[in-house]
Amino acid sequence: MPQAVTIVGATGALGFGLALRWAQAGVPIVIGSRDAGRAQEAAGRALERVPSGSFTGLQNAEAVTQAETVVLSVPFRSQSETLTNLKGALQAGQLLVDATVPLAAAVSGKATRTLGVWQGSAAQQAQEMAPEGVRVVSAFHTVSAALLTDLDHELDEDVLVCGDRREDKTALAEMVDLIDGLRAVDCGPLEMARIVEQFTPLIISINVRHKVRAGIKITGLDRG
Amino acid sequence: MPQAVTIVGATGALGFGLALRWAQAGVPIVIGSRDAGRAQEAAGRALERVPSGSFTGLQNAEAVTQAETVVLSVPFRSQSETLTNLKGALQAGQLLVDATVPLAAAVSGKATRTLGVWQGSAAQQAQEMAPEGVRVVSAFHTVSAALLTDLDHELDEDVLVCGDRREDKTALAEMVDLIDGLRAVDCGPLEMARIVEQFTPLIISINVRHKVRAGIKITGLDRG
Repeated sequence: MPQAVTIVGATGALGFGLALRWAQAGVPIVIGSRDAGRAQEAAGRALERVPSGSFTGLQNAEAVTQAETVVLSVPFRSQSETLTNLKGALQAGQLLVDATVPLAAAVSGKATRTLGVWQGSAAQQAQEMAPEGVRVVSAFHTVSAALLTDLDHELDEDVLVCGDRREDKTALAEMVDLIDGLRAVDCGPLEMARIVEQFTPLIISINVRHKVRAGIKITGLDRG
Repeated sequence: MPQAVTIVGATGALGFGLALRWAQAGVPIVIGSRDAGRAQEAAGRALERVPSGSFTGLQNAEAVTQAETVVLSVPFRSQSETLTNLKGALQAGQLLVDATVPLAAAVSGKATRTLGVWQGSAAQQAQEMAPEGVRVVSAFHTVSAALLTDLDHELDEDVLVCGDRREDKTALAEMVDLIDGLRAVDCGPLEMARIVEQFTPLIISINVRHKVRAGIKITGLDRG
């Protein structure tokens, strides 16, 4: 059986979609939220969608102690506060998968623009704020939350992964492979997240313009 | 017969590849270079590769007067100087297709990193520097020069296009469609070039890591 995954922010659309898809693949899901009640409510909604799934709803600090892998899927506005609150809960050796995008919408700007993050990217901010020994990788910025959540939709796109250690990216790639139709692509060190995080506003711009739910595929990889 | 295209910087790999592919589709190609001799030499090399093609090699300032559409495909290091030199030559109403990428390699940095451009992107710098009435669109940052130049390779990827006027992007899309296997995707206004220009270093990072010639495809567009 696959190892459990904790999703901090699974009450949001992207985290909820990942929870559903992984649960379909047999991954036990721990849903974290600032509020235990909201986490349990989301777990209940998820179970309705995937009756075969295993969902537990817990307050964030407790949720992250339940799995080696923690996905951080919160609005940029909340990322720093969430990581501050998790300082005593995250443990060295855990894999933190950051999916945060510094959209300008965080300060009432456009969702087709981003804010500059001092560290270079939200993922690098996560690395700076996470307790020592927590390994950060960056992923899931280009996958449509709506399509993840629509379980009738057959996914067929890539997940762009950035991180400083190859084994961390391999571990995440194996988890991505559990979801039909998704392929992980190693995009380089964590600093490349400052580029990949910009794909979200670009995709939002494409979505608005073409009235679609766009994603990204990297061509040419089969030729490797 | 399709209208002619002038490619400033077609002595470089990307511009040369575009010249070959468009020439195959029957587009008369004017190759511009700082040096007329180098332009003529490139035109000769192109004709060897595409004997049915029409290639003319001219000094940049003369070359840009020969076509309504001008592709600017020069290293970032040379973009500003090139545009300064073209100030008297470019005419209102021309379409300037900027393919410049502000790679940090321009200042001996890494090709997986970019420089910050004050205007936001190289394309916006081009818009600022171009004579009034010259319409700037941004494109071709994610297409491998090596694959363009390899005429045996069947292309199958997208060209991400940014620009402020829909008719300019439509005009460019029609030109992109002349090349088999390429599809133009409207990514929004010219300011989005600051995101798309970052895709080049990301693709370079992927290429190095996976030993491939990667490109980008936007998924989900058929659902529109």
